[in-house]
Amino acid sequence: MAKKSAHVQSVRDVLRIDPEAVDLSAVDPAGSPVGPKSKSDAAEDLAGMAAELDQLQENLYAEGVLGGKRRVLVVLQGMDTSGKGGTIRHVAGLVNPQGLRIVSFKKPTRSELSHDFLWRIRRQLPTPGEIGFFDRSHYEDVLVPRVDKLVPPSVWRARYQQINDFEAELAESGVTILKCFLHISPERQKERLVARLETPEKRWKYNPQDLAVRAKWSQYQLAYTDLLTKCSPPTAPWYAVPSDRKWYRNWAVARLLLHTLRDLAPTYPVPDYDPVAELATLTEADPLR
Amino acid sequence: MAKKSAHVQSVRDVLRIDPEAVDLSAVDPAGSPVGPKSKSDAAEDLAGMAAELDQLQENLYAEGVLGGKRRVLVVLQGMDTSGKGGTIRHVAGLVNPQGLRIVSFKKPTRSELSHDFLWRIRRQLPTPGEIGFFDRSHYEDVLVPRVDKLVPPSVWRARYQQINDFEAELAESGVTILKCFLHISPERQKERLVARLETPEKRWKYNPQDLAVRAKWSQYQLAYTDLLTKCSPPTAPWYAVPSDRKWYRNWAVARLLLHTLRDLAPTYPVPDYDPVAELATLTEADPLR
Repeated sequence: MAKKSAHVQSVRDVLRIDPEAVDLSAVDPAGSPVGPKSKSDAAEDLAGMAAELDQLQENLYAEGVLGGKRRVLVVLQGMDTSGKGGTIRHVAGLVNPQGLRIVSFKKPTRSELSHDFLWRIRRQLPTPGEIGFFDRSHYEDVLVPRVDKLVPPSVWRARYQQINDFEAELAESGVTILKCFLHISPERQKERLVARLETPEKRWKYNPQDLAVRAKWSQYQLAYTDLLTKCSPPTAPWYAVPSDRKWYRNWAVARLLLHTLRDLAPTYPVPDYDPVAELATLTEADPLR
Repeated sequence: MAKKSAHVQSVRDVLRIDPEAVDLSAVDPAGSPVGPKSKSDAAEDLAGMAAELDQLQENLYAEGVLGGKRRVLVVLQGMDTSGKGGTIRHVAGLVNPQGLRIVSFKKPTRSELSHDFLWRIRRQLPTPGEIGFFDRSHYEDVLVPRVDKLVPPSVWRARYQQINDFEAELAESGVTILKCFLHISPERQKERLVARLETPEKRWKYNPQDLAVRAKWSQYQLAYTDLLTKCSPPTAPWYAVPSDRKWYRNWAVARLLLHTLRDLAPTYPVPDYDPVAELATLTEADPLR
């Protein structure tokens, strides 16, 4: 137990990005700066978290049923093949699917583009009691449009503040946001892209556009550096999750989520009826007789 | 394998409701008319389904990514404590949460009531490639408003045809619907309500309204009988799932879902790019060098 507590204490401190000095080149995508050092240790620790995660989620969900407003939103960003989907599978898979809202944001449709960039995000937020997972998010809007020059710089530059305002508004409405940047190396991306192309069952995951994006690797790292610098208020920090090794990535996001839920500390809410009286009615004067 | 095939062949035939002769009193809520006869056999069979369900779901999801339109919608209806949430937990929990869309419909809000009754349903449909689970659905609109006389009979009676038209439209747009009526006995409901009241951690699941609804048991059974009679076209039949025993209920819904997915037979779609050419580019002319 002491060992586990140590993980929880430090995982956030170690992975949290300091917006004053963002340097992605200093973060080893293959590192394990905190927590387990092997796949088997990580699997064991992950399995050990499941019951507590499940219980915390149920309590949060119960709160929502009884009128609570709190909810959690896990935002996953990262280059192609960094494992946003895999993280959702392995981390979200630890809890009751009924309390989850999982959303993958694709290239915006024409209809979505006719609204402001936060419009489609607002429509998919977790409702009270839910844990939401976003596979890509509003942060795409300071990445692709910038790198591909789809909008003038004044437009994407204004979005940093708009995002900060939006996230502050979320916090006000009961949403706790957990932002994870899944950090991979270009070498690992290449391996994973090759694997997708070589394996018939994985080819659907590949898109010829992936190579065009890969070619702009350094521009994307710069765009990420800027958003990590400008959108990291103390209340909604980013975490850099080393993601070259899937087992480390899954472990780290699960731990970050566990820590987030522990801080919320949802407990079974006290119902607004009298259980003793209800029980008496049901057992002594069952309305169905 | 032969044994499993036998289950699959017959589970739909045995549980399918014949709209010409709906008689809920003839369906034993504690029965196991097909499939495993014990909790351990059911658990074993359920575990045996997981890999195939998972693979079929991934194929369906891949189809959706590459432009396919097909998706599945599992509709769960049943009296309070029949286990709609528990079914979702145990059945949806067998597959990748990323491909799921789980929605619990509560009492309609004022905003929802200002639209037609299908409006809120349409907004929550699974998107292509997804498997949706509805905990309550548009069928509530021919139950509560009827029993509680919230709308004139002409309004709820018209809804049967509106629902049939809606589901036909869904079928046209690629949605395969699986409708499960979770059938429990009033005795079992009483036990479960008592358990919710006696267990502090379960009290949030109880609502004093539950007793008022229980008092109208026979009216609800009649309303169910009518909707099962009127909304069971051959393309979208209802299944009566004996639900007094949770293990049987979970097994039956999982089997029905597996059968539904097998019929769809999604396979890995052929991508619309040339994998060999892409691989050559990546390995011989990596754009990132």
